[in-house]
Amino acid sequence: MITVTETAAMTAWSTARPGRIGFVPTMGFLHSGHVSLMQRLRPEVDRLVVSIFVNPLQFGPNEDLDRYPRDPEGDAAKCRAAGVDALFVPTDFYPSDFSTGVSVARLTEGLCGAKRPGHFDGVTTVVARLFGVTRCHVACFGEKDYQQLAVVRRMVRDLALPVEIVGAPLIRDHDGLALSSRNKYLTADDRPRALSLHHALFAMRDAREAGQTDVPALLALGRSVLQADREDYLQIVDADSLEPLQTVDRPARALVAAFVGQTRLIDNVAL
Amino acid sequence: MITVTETAAMTAWSTARPGRIGFVPTMGFLHSGHVSLMQRLRPEVDRLVVSIFVNPLQFGPNEDLDRYPRDPEGDAAKCRAAGVDALFVPTDFYPSDFSTGVSVARLTEGLCGAKRPGHFDGVTTVVARLFGVTRCHVACFGEKDYQQLAVVRRMVRDLALPVEIVGAPLIRDHDGLALSSRNKYLTADDRPRALSLHHALFAMRDAREAGQTDVPALLALGRSVLQADREDYLQIVDADSLEPLQTVDRPARALVAAFVGQTRLIDNVAL
Repeated sequence: MITVTETAAMTAWSTARPGRIGFVPTMGFLHSGHVSLMQRLRPEVDRLVVSIFVNPLQFGPNEDLDRYPRDPEGDAAKCRAAGVDALFVPTDFYPSDFSTGVSVARLTEGLCGAKRPGHFDGVTTVVARLFGVTRCHVACFGEKDYQQLAVVRRMVRDLALPVEIVGAPLIRDHDGLALSSRNKYLTADDRPRALSLHHALFAMRDAREAGQTDVPALLALGRSVLQADREDYLQIVDADSLEPLQTVDRPARALVAAFVGQTRLIDNVAL
Repeated sequence: MITVTETAAMTAWSTARPGRIGFVPTMGFLHSGHVSLMQRLRPEVDRLVVSIFVNPLQFGPNEDLDRYPRDPEGDAAKCRAAGVDALFVPTDFYPSDFSTGVSVARLTEGLCGAKRPGHFDGVTTVVARLFGVTRCHVACFGEKDYQQLAVVRRMVRDLALPVEIVGAPLIRDHDGLALSSRNKYLTADDRPRALSLHHALFAMRDAREAGQTDVPALLALGRSVLQADREDYLQIVDADSLEPLQTVDRPARALVAAFVGQTRLIDNVAL
């Protein structure tokens, strides 16, 4: 595995090699969820590239950019074990006069987009540039960030980018907590309240499977289970358009975002 | 030459063929300026693609989208004569739920960007999608739209798009008028006032070559020559950053936009 820190060198590496390039963009502090994305692509690509870049554009002014957890040595070991060919850890990612923004409307208006203004503009901009820099043919994103996956798919379709997007299932810890780099912030005391996101979602899913299709009733059930310190949102939306539903009469997704202490957690499940 | 009207078919055509693809995006009503872009690329590419698409995103609500001149048969004949392989005239270019925008900051703030709000967002969005759809390796833009060329170059650099951008010289009519599809709107009576844009710019260039470097003095000279019905702007800017200059102490560009009757004309020259 080669580690590449210069953006131009990353493109040179990719363009010098024939074959299909797979790509997993990350912000580091890798866990089994990230590794599952690498494992998903590894068998079907000739070269596997992983990026670690804590993208300032996707953090709001009061968010955790400065304290986002980091573990460069652990990350490199996990990538090496997963069969990564090139680990891209750019130190010069945005030119000083970087001026271009990519944004997706509508899909970004609700859910996390409503709570984190500018977040998805930062995501689509960094992902578009990463796709260009790595010259990847296929990229894998986790369903943990369900709205992000939908937004990236839309950007790729709209700009006709030559990249196939693969979504991969959310990975949970042994107790059901959705894996997240931000779980590092949680204390032992926080854990039960953090787990309540997962419990709320699965209570809703079970009720749906038992025949309940009324969204207000499902949300009331979920809220009765949720024990976070502050709910950011709990919603049931169309699985593709992300439009809020009143009745679960089509493929749907239940999504939650909530704070446990200072830590914002998200989770989701198919209904 | 094949004419392609479906967007998916354009991408299929490009991806089915090996070799280097050159691309010239246009809004049709082709003139010798457009043809010069095709001729510039033809010797260095394996396949030459030209698009004709009057992009609604780059027109303001009070601009000439509805009356933009069209000449489909003449355009096809000119493309055929220029050795174009595929003429892309999409009838389904934007999906109904198209949601993505590409924008470039700063470079778009002055000049035409200040006078045509949203225009360059429309340009960068359509160009990004056209690049994706055509899978082109090199694209040619005229210096007639000098700011557009700078903006497209910046977008390509920032998003690391795998497309080489070639700028080509502005082409003038026998009397010096910059070729433009919008010249069709001009009456014989309009022509002298239209030509005054070119005369103003070349008076400034001649004064610069004679040693004048003071920008206010050069602009005063230009304005004394300009006889348009309404000046939109007359400026001297840094040739790369497009920042206004006070002194011509580096590569610079003089640019003018002005109305002759209802017709908005632009022109520019290197200083």
